[in-house]
Amino acid sequence: MRNLLSMEHLTNEEVYQILKLASDFENGEQSKLSKSYNVANLFFEPSTRTKTSFEMAERKIGCTVIPFDAGFSSALKGETMYDTVKTLEMIGLDAVIVRAKEDEYYNELLEGINVSVINAGDGAGQHPSQSLLDLYTIHKEFGKFEGLNVTIVGDISHSRVAKSNATALKRLGVNVRFLCPPEWAGEFEAHHSWDELIEDSDVIMLLRIQHERHHVNKSFSKESYHEQYGLTFEREKRMKPNAIIMHPAPVNRDVEIVSELVECKRSRIFDQVRNGVFVRMAILETILKGRE
Amino acid sequence: MRNLLSMEHLTNEEVYQILKLASDFENGEQSKLSKSYNVANLFFEPSTRTKTSFEMAERKIGCTVIPFDAGFSSALKGETMYDTVKTLEMIGLDAVIVRAKEDEYYNELLEGINVSVINAGDGAGQHPSQSLLDLYTIHKEFGKFEGLNVTIVGDISHSRVAKSNATALKRLGVNVRFLCPPEWAGEFEAHHSWDELIEDSDVIMLLRIQHERHHVNKSFSKESYHEQYGLTFEREKRMKPNAIIMHPAPVNRDVEIVSELVECKRSRIFDQVRNGVFVRMAILETILKGRE
Amino acid sequence: MRNLLSMEHLTNEEVYQILKLASDFENGEQSKLSKSYNVANLFFEPSTRTKTSFEMAERKIGCTVIPFDAGFSSALKGETMYDTVKTLEMIGLDAVIVRAKEDEYYNELLEGINVSVINAGDGAGQHPSQSLLDLYTIHKEFGKFEGLNVTIVGDISHSRVAKSNATALKRLGVNVRFLCPPEWAGEFEAHHSWDELIEDSDVIMLLRIQHERHHVNKSFSKESYHEQYGLTFEREKRMKPNAIIMHPAPVNRDVEIVSELVECKRSRIFDQVRNGVFVRMAILETILKGRE
Repeated sequence: MRNLLSMEHLTNEEVYQILKLASDFENGEQSKLSKSYNVANLFFEPSTRTKTSFEMAERKIGCTVIPFDAGFSSALKGETMYDTVKTLEMIGLDAVIVRAKEDEYYNELLEGINVSVINAGDGAGQHPSQSLLDLYTIHKEFGKFEGLNVTIVGDISHSRVAKSNATALKRLGVNVRFLCPPEWAGEFEAHHSWDELIEDSDVIMLLRIQHERHHVNKSFSKESYHEQYGLTFEREKRMKPNAIIMHPAPVNRDVEIVSELVECKRSRIFDQVRNGVFVRMAILETILKGRE
Repeated sequence: MRNLLSMEHLTNEEVYQILKLASDFENGEQSKLSKSYNVANLFFEPSTRTKTSFEMAERKIGCTVIPFDAGFSSALKGETMYDTVKTLEMIGLDAVIVRAKEDEYYNELLEGINVSVINAGDGAGQHPSQSLLDLYTIHKEFGKFEGLNVTIVGDISHSRVAKSNATALKRLGVNVRFLCPPEWAGEFEAHHSWDELIEDSDVIMLLRIQHERHHVNKSFSKESYHEQYGLTFEREKRMKPNAIIMHPAPVNRDVEIVSELVECKRSRIFDQVRNGVFVRMAILETILKGRE
Repeated sequence: MRNLLSMEHLTNEEVYQILKLASDFENGEQSKLSKSYNVANLFFEPSTRTKTSFEMAERKIGCTVIPFDAGFSSALKGETMYDTVKTLEMIGLDAVIVRAKEDEYYNELLEGINVSVINAGDGAGQHPSQSLLDLYTIHKEFGKFEGLNVTIVGDISHSRVAKSNATALKRLGVNVRFLCPPEWAGEFEAHHSWDELIEDSDVIMLLRIQHERHHVNKSFSKESYHEQYGLTFEREKRMKPNAIIMHPAPVNRDVEIVSELVECKRSRIFDQVRNGVFVRMAILETILKGRE
């Protein structure tokens, strides 16, 4: 594995290998890399958890992290992504972790670039490290994927998390269902009421309402979204005994989920963050090991 | 000591312990922490000396510093301080150093958060690490606090330095006096003329005029402030033989103090910066040691 | 050598010493510094390659890099460069690497400052580390400077690269020629047509058209610049067999040079970036060694 760009490029076997390695790291295993690799985090969009999680994972496997301030770089002078990454390659970087606004920005990096690229989110495209940590969280909970009912709720059409997860979960034998307002279904077939889904779901995977993207319908209030599609106390009570709640965060409290449920017994929302560090260690280790 | 939020939470004994440890560090003693702790600096307001001072202190006691760009984080997406800090806890942080615009922002971090919080300035509230370095500077100079006359000059009501210092100095036996325009006295009883204070002060502690905050009276020119409340050559000459000048900086040269006096023999302005590193090492060491 | 501010301050002997040391580093030699020095990068203008290159070079010679976010520092509160750098000195910094908008900003740092200053670009002034890496690239290619024809093309009058290089190259025996629109020649005597220069140049050194600076004539389109002063396929074919193409980057593709030529056989554009790390290691090593 040279790069990690999209869940669609990973075989099931590669997914299971990463989850296994993440689990080893969680159990205290140390990195087996033979040296300190040079990496940089190129975040052209704001991020707290993904960027900080990679920063921590990089240090835990012994990388040297070269700071890169995307908001103050030559990209402001119109430099292309290719030229920016090629420059970092010449400076001695082994891998770059990139988040950018453009869908599939990485297409311009497939030829002529020798540095490894890890996609940390491309526009409304993919977010594979988030997807892998979601898979890890589910597998750690249920010990399997086959036959589970996972319900993804929210703005399916614009969510890179939804797309990455739908691709991967289906292939792993999960029964994936979508719940959203009709105008947010995009290419997917979606349900529009909790009643058909709440009682047999093993996982309720909530998506963030992205106020900062342009597409949010302004006539659709937070209150009416919460009422129709939010996870309320009443709905949480109807969930199966061992069912869990997930959310990639940041959470809009009292929109996607009632605030008091964010840390309830079923919630794995903050566990996902914790798991993310081990999963990103596994991604980095796998890709850097492949360069040795 | 789990957190450092306000000088009001520290006993005199705790203050003396930190000053002692800072002095040990200044004399070359090494950190006694048993491992490398993970810390992050969350500065939601611009800062040069406080942030850089913490960055240096953290490295000197062997911490791993995880970069956090507050101006480019999920706080922009409306994430609460609780959710940001809880996220960092799950990622593996042991302590966060926070500067924020909101007074007592840390109140939402008192429950449910396991990471240690060091307040590096809250709005117009407190700035305890600055206060401790001021105390350290005074104690290093005079070998005691009891009976000293300390005159604090400037915008008392909006200054977190003034508040933190007034609290602590009084409790340590210092005779604290205030000098400022009547509208800037706030809850404090203040003098309005140098004549009553200049000749018996052991310490003249100047405060920065904060043009960047909203409250500055625009009809009050820099020149007239300097004339009435600034430290001029003439006033400096009237000071006691061993009296010293302090300022938390950045200095507005020729406003709070005439530019040529910033590095005069009496001035401890740049020494305060140097002392700050030792004091912050002591704060971090004390809090992290408490977690072992 | 205590500081590196301008190519005009360096003797030829000092230049050759730095190039020799850079070559040693390229051949795998390790730093001979006796300890880890504390440095900070103060970039008040956006930069990718210069900043990242210094970040890498600093780590390769074992420095401790203290993060400094110029866009979020007390400079925003009007702090002078002197006070900022003096503050960093008191915090324990040994050297600062500075890029700033003001020509010769470093003049206020010549007195009273004990920290070493490395100029990474001052306004339309000098850019000595770029110049040294250009010299290194030329010397590595030809094994000498004497008698080479170097043609510098572009906005000579506003380019710090042009100025730094013209100074140094002439003194080293190079025949330096300029090619640019008449209004961009500034103090230099310039040619206005490729025909007089293309066939006997050993080095074509292209400069970036700086759209982000104010002076670009808006009636002068990118297309017409490319046609008259750009390096086209046709012009490249007329170059001497062993002649090379250089550009400090970021390149405006299809303006200064046709895009497909950026990585052609003659181009040293990305090699310059690679060489830059070794040259900056040599600059830092020389200056820090001088402090021992």
